Amino acid sequence: MQENGHQRVSLVTCTAPVNIAVIKYWGKRDEDLILPVNASLSVTLHQDQLKTTTTVACSRSFQRDRIWLNGREEDISHPRLQSCLQEIRRLARKRRSAGDHSPDISSMSHKLHVCSVNNFPTAAGLASSAAGYACLVYALARLFGVEGELSSIARQGSGSACRSLYGGFVQWNLGERPDGTDSLAEQVAPESSWPELRVLILVVSAEQKSVGSTSGMHTSVETSQLLKHRADAVVPGRMEQMRRAIRQRDFQTFGELTMKDSNQFHAVCLDTYPPIFYLNHVSQQIITLVHHYNQHHGETKVAYTFDAGPNAVIYTLQEHLPEFLQLLRLVFPSEVPEEEFVRGLPVSPAELSEELTRDIKIKPSPQGIRYIISTKAGPGPCEVEGPDFHLLGYDGLPKKRAAV
Amino acid sequence: MQENGHQRVSLVTCTAPVNIAVIKYWGKRDEDLILPVNASLSVTLHQDQLKTTTTVACSRSFQRDRIWLNGREEDISHPRLQSCLQEIRRLARKRRSAGDHSPDISSMSHKLHVCSVNNFPTAAGLASSAAGYACLVYALARLFGVEGELSSIARQGSGSACRSLYGGFVQWNLGERPDGTDSLAEQVAPESSWPELRVLILVVSAEQKSVGSTSGMHTSVETSQLLKHRADAVVPGRMEQMRRAIRQRDFQTFGELTMKDSNQFHAVCLDTYPPIFYLNHVSQQIITLVHHYNQHHGETKVAYTFDAGPNAVIYTLQEHLPEFLQLLRLVFPSEVPEEEFVRGLPVSPAELSEELTRDIKIKPSPQGIRYIISTKAGPGPCEVEGPDFHLLGYDGLPKKRAAV
Repeated sequence: MQENGHQRVSLVTCTAPVNIAVIKYWGKRDEDLILPVNASLSVTLHQDQLKTTTTVACSRSFQRDRIWLNGREEDISHPRLQSCLQEIRRLARKRRSAGDHSPDISSMSHKLHVCSVNNFPTAAGLASSAAGYACLVYALARLFGVEGELSSIARQGSGSACRSLYGGFVQWNLGERPDGTDSLAEQVAPESSWPELRVLILVVSAEQKSVGSTSGMHTSVETSQLLKHRADAVVPGRMEQMRRAIRQRDFQTFGELTMKDSNQFHAVCLDTYPPIFYLNHVSQQIITLVHHYNQHHGETKVAYTFDAGPNAVIYTLQEHLPEFLQLLRLVFPSEVPEEEFVRGLPVSPAELSEELTRDIKIKPSPQGIRYIISTKAGPGPCEVEGPDFHLLGYDGLPKKRAAV
Repeated sequence: MQENGHQRVSLVTCTAPVNIAVIKYWGKRDEDLILPVNASLSVTLHQDQLKTTTTVACSRSFQRDRIWLNGREEDISHPRLQSCLQEIRRLARKRRSAGDHSPDISSMSHKLHVCSVNNFPTAAGLASSAAGYACLVYALARLFGVEGELSSIARQGSGSACRSLYGGFVQWNLGERPDGTDSLAEQVAPESSWPELRVLILVVSAEQKSVGSTSGMHTSVETSQLLKHRADAVVPGRMEQMRRAIRQRDFQTFGELTMKDSNQFHAVCLDTYPPIFYLNHVSQQIITLVHHYNQHHGETKVAYTFDAGPNAVIYTLQEHLPEFLQLLRLVFPSEVPEEEFVRGLPVSPAELSEELTRDIKIKPSPQGIRYIISTKAGPGPCEVEGPDFHLLGYDGLPKKRAAV
């Protein structure tokens, strides 16, 4: 807390991770509370490669709530943002009425300034709203001194945001109650439990903007006759199998289920009317490549998953990574310099055997992949201490750096 | 019947149509008898544009069964061919033991020669096996003087062949009996009942060969959790709706159901493991085009359906055909001369309104469509009389013409 002329400004800065589902969330049973039609399970990615940083500030001197996202001021009246702000303020008030009068809490009635940036381009097509809402809710909770369950608040910003509140392997429970209080995220296993697991994000060249996931899943719930069957009859069993596979570090089962569930999600999109296509030609090639690769080795060494866009996320084990990455370079030759083509965690070089290159019967697609981010599972949100990290100055406005 | 040296040769020539399903057949519950997991319904296309012609011949002088397909001798020991030959011979014997001793029947123990040609290129990706088996079974029945139900025999050659035994709108009943005797085709309505209905086959440029439908549906039955739900819970209702739509000439319902069922079939393919992709980039563009077109008009004027490949079949009404065809020319500009680009039934020219071209927000794909066949619903198989039409000479060998 610092003096700003005559007024104090409270500042908190936090970071939060991206998560990639292996059992997919697609469809809401309650659009206001954001309650899903099925449970889901994701891997939290490491923040060294992908994170959102958010600074929240409150001060008696602020005239109104304001928000800056990636350097641009945005409209804070967005209903989902408002849901999160209201919920966290409600929780803080509840705590105050329960008798806690720490100084953090007194600032709760002040107006808020929020500033948030991602360390990855929006073009990466990663659901930045998950990391964004998780980070916002986590930072506000710190600012207001609120402790305990936050995933039901983040969920009301963006469904999958609730999973970004934990590190490692995280499930979002379906819940039963109409008020959604049991539709929460919880950790299945920490990231340290499976250190060999590695992740590649293949950023694919997309020609056109895909249907947004909010409107897409709404149309799916309205029109797909397969969605309900998936939610009721397929996902519960897969959740159980997936939890077991993660706890036993059984990559065969983990990988196969991940691929099947990605495919089924896209099948539901195709069963939607009018149909939704997220996979493009390059996505299909990546799918074929992974199956040919696994077939060549006679086991599931690599798995793909696709969200509401053409980019692939690859899960594999550290030992298989060099060979598979080399294969990607062969099938998707790039003109981009190597250090820009593969970013993030370094991967050792590898040579491909003649048998492997012969078995992979795919015509190369030059420039099919724009670049690759190499990462792994990582921890949940955390607070960043020290004034240098704040994205807002003590005047409550974005620092120049953040506005770039 | 003619003298061939000292031996008589009996010759029969028939033609049979192609059919395009609007409620799709995908998956067998019995692979030997070819019993489906769900009922299906198709439109028989007119033979003026698409047909198979088959000549069957038998003679005491023939040494062994032989078959020529599109000018090439093929192996007649193929199990499905053998199923059809055995079944039709069994039926003929049954008829003889029942006391009918017409001269046709006496030839039943002789060896057979079969010669078959399509009047459309295999590249059109139309399920030629349906027309082929329907034609073979129909011609053999004529040769042996067998009357009555033939669809259960054609079905054992190629499932959808049973639907090519009737003209107009044809359903293939699911049946209940384990021996398949109630899994038969029957006419829902004759082609004359809906003369305004028109059909376009859009032959799409394909880069690679798709997974064959026999192995594809086998893998789907083994691995897709959505297939069974489709078969049990979705298709029965759609069959009922589709029959009603056809009898009431309700294009809105007919078109919408046709599109939804095509999409669901491809969704099941995507839910198969490993996933099967039949739709390519151009197929997706055609789908988007149709939805944008219908949206522009505020009603379902045009419907698409796709089988086990990227080619589209378009159903529409005569009055909408000129405009939609002109739109196809705009979105898929071709360097092929007009008379080769659009084949079959002539379509009047049309101008596109500015509003329409503005509403169709699709980047043109030059050469995306190779050519278009314009046709309509048509009659079932028939015998062609006159020696000129026979594909086999009285020596039992293909005439030069047929061997080209």
